[in-house]
Amino acid sequence: MADLKSKFLKAYSVLKAELLQDPAFEFTDNDRQWVDRMLDYNVPGGKLNRGLSVLDSYKLLIEGRELTDDEIFLASALGWCIEWLQAFFLVLDDIMDGSHTRRGQPCWFRLPKVGMIAANDGVLLRNHIPRILKKHFRGKPYYVDLLDLFNEIEFQTASGQMIDLITTIEGEKDLSKYTLSLHRRIVQYKTAYYSFYLPVACALLMSGENLDNHVEVKNILVEMGTYFQVQDDYLDCFGDPETIGKIGTDIEDFKCSWMVVKALELCNEDQKKILHENYGNPDPSNVAKVKALYNELNLQGVFAEYESKSYEKLITAIEAHPSKSVQAVLKSFLGKIYKRQK
Amino acid sequence: MADLKSKFLKAYSVLKAELLQDPAFEFTDNDRQWVDRMLDYNVPGGKLNRGLSVLDSYKLLIEGRELTDDEIFLASALGWCIEWLQAFFLVLDDIMDGSHTRRGQPCWFRLPKVGMIAANDGVLLRNHIPRILKKHFRGKPYYVDLLDLFNEIEFQTASGQMIDLITTIEGEKDLSKYTLSLHRRIVQYKTAYYSFYLPVACALLMSGENLDNHVEVKNILVEMGTYFQVQDDYLDCFGDPETIGKIGTDIEDFKCSWMVVKALELCNEDQKKILHENYGNPDPSNVAKVKALYNELNLQGVFAEYESKSYEKLITAIEAHPSKSVQAVLKSFLGKIYKRQK
Ligand SMILES: [Mg+2]
Ligand SMILES: [Mg+2]
Ligand SMILES: [Mg+2]
Ligand SMILES: [Mg+2]
Ligand SMILES: [Mg+2]
Ligand SMILES: [Mg+2]
Repeated sequence: MADLKSKFLKAYSVLKAELLQDPAFEFTDNDRQWVDRMLDYNVPGGKLNRGLSVLDSYKLLIEGRELTDDEIFLASALGWCIEWLQAFFLVLDDIMDGSHTRRGQPCWFRLPKVGMIAANDGVLLRNHIPRILKKHFRGKPYYVDLLDLFNEIEFQTASGQMIDLITTIEGEKDLSKYTLSLHRRIVQYKTAYYSFYLPVACALLMSGENLDNHVEVKNILVEMGTYFQVQDDYLDCFGDPETIGKIGTDIEDFKCSWMVVKALELCNEDQKKILHENYGNPDPSNVAKVKALYNELNLQGVFAEYESKSYEKLITAIEAHPSKSVQAVLKSFLGKIYKRQK
Repeated sequence: MADLKSKFLKAYSVLKAELLQDPAFEFTDNDRQWVDRMLDYNVPGGKLNRGLSVLDSYKLLIEGRELTDDEIFLASALGWCIEWLQAFFLVLDDIMDGSHTRRGQPCWFRLPKVGMIAANDGVLLRNHIPRILKKHFRGKPYYVDLLDLFNEIEFQTASGQMIDLITTIEGEKDLSKYTLSLHRRIVQYKTAYYSFYLPVACALLMSGENLDNHVEVKNILVEMGTYFQVQDDYLDCFGDPETIGKIGTDIEDFKCSWMVVKALELCNEDQKKILHENYGNPDPSNVAKVKALYNELNLQGVFAEYESKSYEKLITAIEAHPSKSVQAVLKSFLGKIYKRQK
């Protein structure tokens, strides 16, 4: 597995070198340096879970035999396409949120010579995906399905980003908009499709499957992605900052988090007043009042209940799937996130 | 022809209505209103030349017989995809340039409730293209070629935008970077591919042609697009503001215009000094000095010479093409722009 990861990492250098020699554009040295630096800054610095899981999933799907070097490279290339997609979304998201740091360094658009050029760099990142797909998959029978897949998932992710943005338009902080159904829609579209379904869908296509026959796999993975984000929201508030590596600020940031949505659902009128008065305020005393209310409503217990219910539902759905190798893929995803502390 | 245009315009409403009912995303009324307004604000307000030219070109390519309603709709849909692509680029370009107005109204991102959400709206516009293509062309033999075409052209346009942006990074106003070769690269990639080649390529695909056999058509159209932009740069300085409908500001804006690039090529050391001292300065006296220098260098004559040379070269290339109907398409494009005053 360590070997697979090192091969995955090597594929990045190959893909980058190819993009910097793309015959569809006449690069000068100056352009090439810009793109080179922009890629290194934005693409490989994350945890790479999404990208690596294409490889892992493909290995489980073909079960038994060893992967050829060619298969490892192709699955890695698809994995990297997902990392490129994520980089595209993060570069633009940081601009839109006015963020300062990302993955422990300044956001790309915060660099003095970059600024708003970052918006076009985001577009370039996105455009690299079809360049990679065309170069390595043009002759494959599933080429058009790959294009359709990436297009549909990008559309869904951008639509999820849209609902997130338009429900929290500056100056319109209004808790009454935050409902479980809104939370579910944001999470499902903005995160679950590209983070959970897309890697498995890529692996399925590579192994010769028709995605029309795997709607249930999609549903399970979208459900798992939703569960993952609920954990994320929970850990932001009740996780150990040492373990998760950052101090949560969802309350200060007026985020449409599962915590506040659940609190709104469970609270009485007096408690609702406390939420409205304190949520989204950066002052520590306001944050403390919100957290005290979360405790009063026993959100830790409510979350534990949600977690075990979700797990049972997911396991039941997975075990109903006719293919053992598909089951293995889904269980591997679930195993990685169930009861995670970070 | 008036009839074709009205059918083209009608296709917009059909496409918009379909996008607002796209089953790949669960819209609420609120989301739907946002997208509806965003589309009406950004997509149909231009001159629609690019979109309409798909229809015109297709009509010339199949020569002789009448277009069916189905063909009219499909060619219109492809034309609208180009308008959507342009809207995507313009929304982001206005953000990056910090512009104030576009097509006689405030830029989309300048609207109070929009702001940086505009960046994601740009992404959504871009994502609508594959949704339109999938809905109406998924079963066509040229579907995958359409996807490849739009992907390649978008990549080239974003790359052209990149060179434009990185050569004029704020605080680095440096005329010595402005050369004919840079100007040609910016114009070719940022404008010519999507404005001139893309409409004809769409029409060729619809009429069953393989684009690999039409590299010469591409070269001619890219050449024509370059000529078109040189005219644009010329008219910005020497055109009649009444006729072109705006007052040019390329000199004030330190644009990498054909005018300044040509002036740099032709000037002596003293004249170069005048350019360096006055170009990119909003003061009317500086602008006047630049214009006086352009006159001294007889740029009007140089342009007239360039224009007739380009025309001759293009006509010769067009008449060397084996297909009369392709010749008709190319001549129609050229006829629309040769010696234009606006
Ligand atoms: Mg953000
Ligand atoms: Mg955000
Ligand atoms: Mg979080
Ligand atoms: Mg602009
Ligand atoms: Mg610009
Ligand atoms: Mg101009």
